[in-house]
Amino acid sequence: MRTVTVEASVSYQILIGKGLLAAVGTETAKRISPCKAALITDSVVEALYADTVRTSLEKAGFSVCTFSFPAGEASKRISTLEQILEFLAEEEMTRQDIIVALGGGVVGDMAGFAAAVYQRGIRFIQIPTTFLAAVDSSVGGKTAIDLAAGKNMAGAFYQPHLVVCDIDTLQTLPQATFADGCAEVVKYGVIGNEALFEQVKDGCKKEELEEIIEACVKMKRDIVMEDEFDTGTRQLLNLGHTLGHAIEKKSDFSITHGSAVAMGLSLIAQIAEQRKIAQAGITDRIKQALTANHLPTEAPYSAAEIAQETCYDKKRRGNTITFVFPERIGACRLEKIPVSAVEEMVAAALAKR
Amino acid sequence: MRTVTVEASVSYQILIGKGLLAAVGTETAKRISPCKAALITDSVVEALYADTVRTSLEKAGFSVCTFSFPAGEASKRISTLEQILEFLAEEEMTRQDIIVALGGGVVGDMAGFAAAVYQRGIRFIQIPTTFLAAVDSSVGGKTAIDLAAGKNMAGAFYQPHLVVCDIDTLQTLPQATFADGCAEVVKYGVIGNEALFEQVKDGCKKEELEEIIEACVKMKRDIVMEDEFDTGTRQLLNLGHTLGHAIEKKSDFSITHGSAVAMGLSLIAQIAEQRKIAQAGITDRIKQALTANHLPTEAPYSAAEIAQETCYDKKRRGNTITFVFPERIGACRLEKIPVSAVEEMVAAALAKR
Repeated sequence: MRTVTVEASVSYQILIGKGLLAAVGTETAKRISPCKAALITDSVVEALYADTVRTSLEKAGFSVCTFSFPAGEASKRISTLEQILEFLAEEEMTRQDIIVALGGGVVGDMAGFAAAVYQRGIRFIQIPTTFLAAVDSSVGGKTAIDLAAGKNMAGAFYQPHLVVCDIDTLQTLPQATFADGCAEVVKYGVIGNEALFEQVKDGCKKEELEEIIEACVKMKRDIVMEDEFDTGTRQLLNLGHTLGHAIEKKSDFSITHGSAVAMGLSLIAQIAEQRKIAQAGITDRIKQALTANHLPTEAPYSAAEIAQETCYDKKRRGNTITFVFPERIGACRLEKIPVSAVEEMVAAALAKR
Repeated sequence: MRTVTVEASVSYQILIGKGLLAAVGTETAKRISPCKAALITDSVVEALYADTVRTSLEKAGFSVCTFSFPAGEASKRISTLEQILEFLAEEEMTRQDIIVALGGGVVGDMAGFAAAVYQRGIRFIQIPTTFLAAVDSSVGGKTAIDLAAGKNMAGAFYQPHLVVCDIDTLQTLPQATFADGCAEVVKYGVIGNEALFEQVKDGCKKEELEEIIEACVKMKRDIVMEDEFDTGTRQLLNLGHTLGHAIEKKSDFSITHGSAVAMGLSLIAQIAEQRKIAQAGITDRIKQALTANHLPTEAPYSAAEIAQETCYDKKRRGNTITFVFPERIGACRLEKIPVSAVEEMVAAALAKR
């Protein structure tokens, strides 16, 4: 087992290893006195892992109640939040009790947001069961829900008290779900870790997951600790995401987050190369790594379509948008682009491919 | 105009004076560069003051859009929050823009909570238009919504960037609405300001509102600054509220917050006197002050009914409940009471009256 310590407004540990689901109870009890634990999960994950986690928590002295919602991004809405909050209230959960989020990014977002606002904040434990959640959403304290107008439009910055990542749960993920995590891993490599990029450029190996996850969460931790509330350097983590979110939204979320990020990453690399920000050849290297990880690299939209969705984004500051451009594998920089120049910039890159 | 400065996680000022609605724009512009301002209000306050505030903001260079919801506690639900969030998104509000909350406690709670979670937090300005909101909910950063299971069960700690309290708006409040604020003022006197208690014991005078509000918000500021996240001394502010909330809830909110607090305050004083925590005669002094402020002092419920509602409250810590007991006018103390002893304690006080 590997342990990564995060010092944010709450100090907490990320445990990464095999067989950890059955150790959730003892690991939690080391940090939090036995109390009520509301296990929040989704319909798919509940069937696979809820019993193991519940038994582990109960053996350690926690009293467990379970709330499960339908799996999928469609659940990431305020209506699910309301159901969770009413469930917590019906169970008479108090500020001394805890929430245990068991699942992927949607579960982490919903349970984390509910923890942030129920009685103005109760503690929560995160157990990511997808590769994407393990490398990305379990660090940083961002929780969110989607609105009709866009993804992650409301939420809270709220840190977990413990993250338990059992890599056994990642071994059996469908290929497309696993690939979603790979897109973020490639992104981390491009942002600031060439060795990691080299390690995963022919595909993330299942036997190296502990090491890969540790590398990613340490990078994210270091960036987030510098900028917990996302006002500066944390924007580096948006590499591939500014265009990626636009692509994801344009597809009405039929393109997964990882695929959209892979397309966004390829496109921004192309733009960076054309603008002489990046070393020549970087786009090909990134695209090859994404392809080897079973990810798409070409967005099925026009420059006008992508630009339009991009220019309405919460990262927008007035009349400019901050983009993260790769300079080389392992180094990126932020640059503000006028809203009026985005379409032309994207069009030039699309013309080149 | 009086100015009170609050140093919380955000440092901000509370301006108290006459004719301030028309100065909202210039006062805001001193602190925040012109941007979009979403004016959130309710149906009653909109008709009275929205035009004045909108014009003031526009003159100062802000671009204003307005969202109004039906007045009343019934709007303090997650469905209203959702409507506000979708409105903000439709208006393409970004993290650089502001929310302006114009109204009483419900507006402050809804707009403040929306500001806390929209894009994980945008700035907001609070313009309380009720006496209760002016003395109480505009300081402390607590925002909340009600759930089916209880009042204020979800929310956020979130500080405004400016509070503008125009006492002209308080001159024309219906007597019952004004009295709601008086209940909190009497409470502040009992907690820690005998001079304030003496000043208002024959009724809060309209010509002394600036001074009274300043005294209350300074007291609340001092208590909150010691304990922003409500884990210790801030509990003093719950004087009269632990039983008051139970009474309010038992009435299905047909008893107003101020009336319920007045009943709760009378009851806890009686209990404190019986338990020899308080000086003899304190109950009569408090009841006289409440009566002079047009507030009721007798709860229309049995000890069993009050105890049952009390024992399920978010302030509950395990098997005990922390009550705030007056010792004398101007001094209180916290004491934990076992859940099992609450009914008998209330029954003894009710038998005495």
